[in-house]
Amino acid sequence: MTTQVIVLNGGSSSGKSGIVRCLQAVLPEPWLAASIDSLVEAMPASLQASDAGIEFAAGGGVQVGPAFRELEAAWMEGVAAMARAGAHVIVDDVFLGGAASQGRWQKALGGLDALWVGVRCESAVAAGREVARGDRIRGMAASQAETVHRGVVYDLEVDTTHTQSLDCARTVATRVN
Amino acid sequence: MTTQVIVLNGGSSSGKSGIVRCLQAVLPEPWLAASIDSLVEAMPASLQASDAGIEFAAGGGVQVGPAFRELEAAWMEGVAAMARAGAHVIVDDVFLGGAASQGRWQKALGGLDALWVGVRCESAVAAGREVARGDRIRGMAASQAETVHRGVVYDLEVDTTHTQSLDCARTVATRVN
Amino acid sequence: MTTQVIVLNGGSSSGKSGIVRCLQAVLPEPWLAASIDSLVEAMPASLQASDAGIEFAAGGGVQVGPAFRELEAAWMEGVAAMARAGAHVIVDDVFLGGAASQGRWQKALGGLDALWVGVRCESAVAAGREVARGDRIRGMAASQAETVHRGVVYDLEVDTTHTQSLDCARTVATRVN
Amino acid sequence: MTTQVIVLNGGSSSGKSGIVRCLQAVLPEPWLAASIDSLVEAMPASLQASDAGIEFAAGGGVQVGPAFRELEAAWMEGVAAMARAGAHVIVDDVFLGGAASQGRWQKALGGLDALWVGVRCESAVAAGREVARGDRIRGMAASQAETVHRGVVYDLEVDTTHTQSLDCARTVATRVN
Repeated sequence: MTTQVIVLNGGSSSGKSGIVRCLQAVLPEPWLAASIDSLVEAMPASLQASDAGIEFAAGGGVQVGPAFRELEAAWMEGVAAMARAGAHVIVDDVFLGGAASQGRWQKALGGLDALWVGVRCESAVAAGREVARGDRIRGMAASQAETVHRGVVYDLEVDTTHTQSLDCARTVATRVN
Repeated sequence: MTTQVIVLNGGSSSGKSGIVRCLQAVLPEPWLAASIDSLVEAMPASLQASDAGIEFAAGGGVQVGPAFRELEAAWMEGVAAMARAGAHVIVDDVFLGGAASQGRWQKALGGLDALWVGVRCESAVAAGREVARGDRIRGMAASQAETVHRGVVYDLEVDTTHTQSLDCARTVATRVN
Repeated sequence: MTTQVIVLNGGSSSGKSGIVRCLQAVLPEPWLAASIDSLVEAMPASLQASDAGIEFAAGGGVQVGPAFRELEAAWMEGVAAMARAGAHVIVDDVFLGGAASQGRWQKALGGLDALWVGVRCESAVAAGREVARGDRIRGMAASQAETVHRGVVYDLEVDTTHTQSLDCARTVATRVN
Repeated sequence: MTTQVIVLNGGSSSGKSGIVRCLQAVLPEPWLAASIDSLVEAMPASLQASDAGIEFAAGGGVQVGPAFRELEAAWMEGVAAMARAGAHVIVDDVFLGGAASQGRWQKALGGLDALWVGVRCESAVAAGREVARGDRIRGMAASQAETVHRGVVYDLEVDTTHTQSLDCARTVATRVN
């Protein structure tokens, strides 16, 4: 079977988007990126900081409201439809709900051949990268490093703590059919 | 009937993305933005400047290749699926192919209630905005100002030459059911 | 005498940075941009949202603290030194203190030939542009539209309410020696 | 003596800007960032891609012309003036000319207490990061990794190949008086 969707899950500042760009560079076919960050940017500004949408609290916590969930569910259906229409898609998400988040994706991607990839990074290292990026609320990396993987089942896991994005991408690429 | 998709078509620097953000601010429901610019950003870097992908020539011309067209077609299906799944979507595109581009969208959006909006701007004014933005190749605004509207049929047209984005958005909003 | 520094002052979303890029395009010599926004970006993240640095309140108010003022004063000296060393410089600032802000610049620019330009925009129009930009806190444009000009003396004023950035830049350029 | 300026020199994608942000976070006083990237952004668009300004060639080579050099020299004087006026400044530069580039900075910073820091990164690792960033011309990292350090004398060197930005910043911070 041919891999149609690659789903990367990992905490904030774990290095997912770097792996996405490297996968796009090393895979022979063109792959489209579908990132939760781009979904947030596509939402109205009012949802980007509100109870109904998504809230980034000072300590690094993230709360998602009902309006966000509705648009997210439709977005998942859209991503699945892109893959069914023939696009190779790399999803880059943060499973705030752990196994429940994976369940939503599994339902949306029903019938598609998906490769599930866990992107790990030691909490302290991810927190350091968060400081180096300078554009993220401090504390997100640490608070998400473990929780987003709870109960999630992967085809493979990569760890960016001591391994470069490009090397992680090459490891993932060997599993893409 | 309830409007499910708003499609904005206009040349580079005609003011589409400003209208999108204003629409998101003035419409009572949350609307998701789906922009051709975000599609380009989601593509591999190699397609963002190549024969197979999209090429921005020095004079302002834009060429689109087969790999771009394939991903674009899948993206259109995905956008339509988001709308069918219940999301309100504002598409922001540049119909390089005029009526043929509209035909592709009409096919993808089959069965959905779409509002077609032409975003006009006098060529000289759009060219001036291109200089003021500073991040676009000079000449795109002028070369696209008229051609993208050729043969395209609209429900309404707005003109940003002398009218603000917010006022254009309010005009569009009165036609959203 | 040869103009060494152009100082643009205007409220948020009045169109200053567009005029800067157009001035850089229309003036025959290369001019360097020195923007208050770039100063804020050069500060530590901790100062970008704190009592000691700069605070952007929900209603659009902006508060500047002592640590910000110290770095700003040194930055003004630096900008003046760039001009004394031969660079043509376009300053793009928001005179939150009106005449007092101009006084600080006059002191820093002592001995240099400066052209003082007021960038006006009707409050309602600037507020509309703020919505269209989507990346600014709502209310800044309206709250600054008039106050930043209080007691400030200009060589010329331009108004972006009904005039394009490029045309405003051309007007300014005629006054550059 | 009190350190007034920290000068970081390293090739493209060696991790300088991450170290700058971490230094701003760990140092007790507010430090201002002055980056060669921000200088390029402050120049007219026409100089950002021309013989007279700066040219980024397809293979990763960078050529700098006379107009660029003139503005750069004035910028160096300006950065030095900011430090003399009391700002703590972190310079982040790419010494394309090796020892000659350092000589220019030494002249501009005359009389100031500067800490010279070499930022090293193995060529292959920097090249991998370049792919992961996705916004740099491929080849710059590899072509600059060694050459920018030729003949340059440092107070200390850090190596980001296996060490995080935050840890490198802490090492640098121990040398700041």
